[in-house]
Amino acid sequence: MDFRTLPGFREFYPEILAARNEIFSRWRSAARSFGFKEFEPPVLEELSLFTEKSGEEIRSQLFEFVDKGGREVALRPEMTPSLARMVGSKAGGLRKPVKWFAIGENYRYERQQKGRLRAFYQYNADILGDDSVACDAEIMALLVASLESLGLTKEEFKVRLGDRKLWVLFLKSRGVPEDYVVPVLSAADKMAKISPEAFSEVLSGSLKGSGVDSDALAREIRNFASINDFSELEKFFEGISKGEDSELLARLEDWKVLFESLENLGKSDFVVCDMGIVRGLAYYTGFVFEAFQTVGTGRALAGGGRYDSLVRKLGYQDLPAVGFGMGDVTVSDLLELVGKKPKNKDALDAFLIIGSPSLRKKALNIASSLRGGGISVEYPFKDSGFGKQFKQADSSGAKFALILGEDEAEKGVVKIKNLSSGEEVFVKETEVRKFLSEKSKLD
Amino acid sequence: MDFRTLPGFREFYPEILAARNEIFSRWRSAARSFGFKEFEPPVLEELSLFTEKSGEEIRSQLFEFVDKGGREVALRPEMTPSLARMVGSKAGGLRKPVKWFAIGENYRYERQQKGRLRAFYQYNADILGDDSVACDAEIMALLVASLESLGLTKEEFKVRLGDRKLWVLFLKSRGVPEDYVVPVLSAADKMAKISPEAFSEVLSGSLKGSGVDSDALAREIRNFASINDFSELEKFFEGISKGEDSELLARLEDWKVLFESLENLGKSDFVVCDMGIVRGLAYYTGFVFEAFQTVGTGRALAGGGRYDSLVRKLGYQDLPAVGFGMGDVTVSDLLELVGKKPKNKDALDAFLIIGSPSLRKKALNIASSLRGGGISVEYPFKDSGFGKQFKQADSSGAKFALILGEDEAEKGVVKIKNLSSGEEVFVKETEVRKFLSEKSKLD
Repeated sequence: MDFRTLPGFREFYPEILAARNEIFSRWRSAARSFGFKEFEPPVLEELSLFTEKSGEEIRSQLFEFVDKGGREVALRPEMTPSLARMVGSKAGGLRKPVKWFAIGENYRYERQQKGRLRAFYQYNADILGDDSVACDAEIMALLVASLESLGLTKEEFKVRLGDRKLWVLFLKSRGVPEDYVVPVLSAADKMAKISPEAFSEVLSGSLKGSGVDSDALAREIRNFASINDFSELEKFFEGISKGEDSELLARLEDWKVLFESLENLGKSDFVVCDMGIVRGLAYYTGFVFEAFQTVGTGRALAGGGRYDSLVRKLGYQDLPAVGFGMGDVTVSDLLELVGKKPKNKDALDAFLIIGSPSLRKKALNIASSLRGGGISVEYPFKDSGFGKQFKQADSSGAKFALILGEDEAEKGVVKIKNLSSGEEVFVKETEVRKFLSEKSKLD
Repeated sequence: MDFRTLPGFREFYPEILAARNEIFSRWRSAARSFGFKEFEPPVLEELSLFTEKSGEEIRSQLFEFVDKGGREVALRPEMTPSLARMVGSKAGGLRKPVKWFAIGENYRYERQQKGRLRAFYQYNADILGDDSVACDAEIMALLVASLESLGLTKEEFKVRLGDRKLWVLFLKSRGVPEDYVVPVLSAADKMAKISPEAFSEVLSGSLKGSGVDSDALAREIRNFASINDFSELEKFFEGISKGEDSELLARLEDWKVLFESLENLGKSDFVVCDMGIVRGLAYYTGFVFEAFQTVGTGRALAGGGRYDSLVRKLGYQDLPAVGFGMGDVTVSDLLELVGKKPKNKDALDAFLIIGSPSLRKKALNIASSLRGGGISVEYPFKDSGFGKQFKQADSSGAKFALILGEDEAEKGVVKIKNLSSGEEVFVKETEVRKFLSEKSKLD
């Protein structure tokens, strides 16, 4: 027998878990400060919930099976479809806008690659029921605040902001017929990852039968996608018939409002315009964004955008929505890289050293009283000499050793040794709890 | 289309989740105060990990399937086998005893019954690498402390303590051959749930071929199982050849040490002797216990005991172990019953009311500053009149409305209205954060 975890699944030993949970706890605090409420969807759902959102092709990436009741089910690959159901099915009874977040594990059966997990945690935050640009600014501000809560700065990450709506207006202005827009966007999304030749080929495939000159459009798309400054964006559209296109004008106005709101929220320094951000998923309908680290490998940390049609598509009322998702692994790698891994706060406060078997009763009384006061305490289960117990205290990682010897017991005191400084003090038995409470507050 | 959660699965809306997480948070604090570290096993494991522990018959209760790589896998029905692997495979490098806890969801494909879920959360705590009775006392003390942390008292729950080791000694003293002991214990475990006639039948089946008088043993088992006081237990064994049986004497001594340790830890008032607690699972080897509510339906809240052979059985070194598992649903029902449901601490601190569009900039600045100080703030995304915004503030559940009108802005102040008392005060813009921080500390 040799039991292992499944490929792409993680088992969390305490130290690793504590570090991960510290990240989650900062994210929770950030989301709560923005008035977001936490929700939790089921881990297992009907398969159709996921195929309805993403198409049948999603099945190849799912942990899907038929359960003992004959139901086609799947481990959730993401939380958004469940969110849409939870909000959609009770939309009438929920205060709008709905501001919710979740931190949970998702599952995808992906080809094994370095760093690619099949079970991965994600932090999602979404606002449903509001279509204003102020709402887009709010979700982006939360994304920034969540990364800031980990001590990350604008020198270490940026949010790149693109716009599906503007892409659609741009493609239409270039004569791309309505039905071809989504396939062309999907091709544009792949552009950065493939060679120019491969891109031309993909694009020409997407445009088949549209009558559009694929090579000319490829050049224009490359130009458009390379815009990474708002003034460039304004300039780009100056050339075309802006006067006739009130949609376009209104959209450029939206960009201004968005940046203004981000500035008012103190987050505009983190956000840059980047029309190369397209987001492949067909369900995005407006602003889209990705957070990237600007140090090291430049990996993506999070992504999101506006998706106004999903809730209706799943059969519920029309609820505009915007949100983001962020994984724990890339963020944790980044923190490691920049030397900002959160400290493990889980250290034991005190280890009790029991001078003789007759003192065990007193020792357990003290342990129990300290624990009742929220101080973490261990003591040896078996009687042994001072030397062995001191070793146990050291290896426990405790901040303090509490030494209860015959002499101390007679005087009603406990010797408290700071295990990092070596400093020793005698404290009255009745005052140990107070002493340690104050010490642990100083941490 | 009509998407629903799968039968027996829960989706947690924010209010329900907050109440559940408050319970989890109290359990975490209790476990940490005892020096336990949190770990997390994978949700999906190789099927063989579970069948190796519990036998092939467990398959009928599992969400099991073949994954896209041809592996037989199952959603975990419990966390103990994964715990045994995690500790067993790294036993050499871990400090002993290993004191670990986990809170996570488990999955069983069970027949649908009222209150029976297929996805259920469980809080597990275990100590591995120590076989002393002091260690049994520690885990039972944690069980009690975890329930106490929710405000439950000894009038509301008790821990009933049985002993598989004593049952074995008892059955052997009655001439039950070694190979028959486990089946007889499994029959005894069912006794309370079936009629005396049905029990006699089950027992006689278990004893087939042993040569033991099944009817006589049934009576004796009923007597033994009805013992619910330690002095009774001592009396029961006085009658039989105690002098010859040093194992028996030693075990009765263990009981005394266990109760003494529980008393020293301040938990003995919660624990009663009850030989009716057998625990059906074959893997228990020593003390076994169940926590029951002593009000209302008297339902079981938690169960556990010593299981010294599991880690070795899974192919690792010999590591004695003791632990318990507790579900969130029965505990939460009990808290509701006795009026001790934890308060939802997730309420919004402040809702900003923006007197005119020109004040939005100032409002967002204030929101951002408050959020940076850990105060939760919402503001309306769209401009609207005072009346509508006051309604939004009320329905947001916020403690305070922060009113920023033209007059206030001119004077550099904000009007702060306590939404429960109606009280209003004017606070300088620069002091709003300090004011609210102090108020929220008073909660």
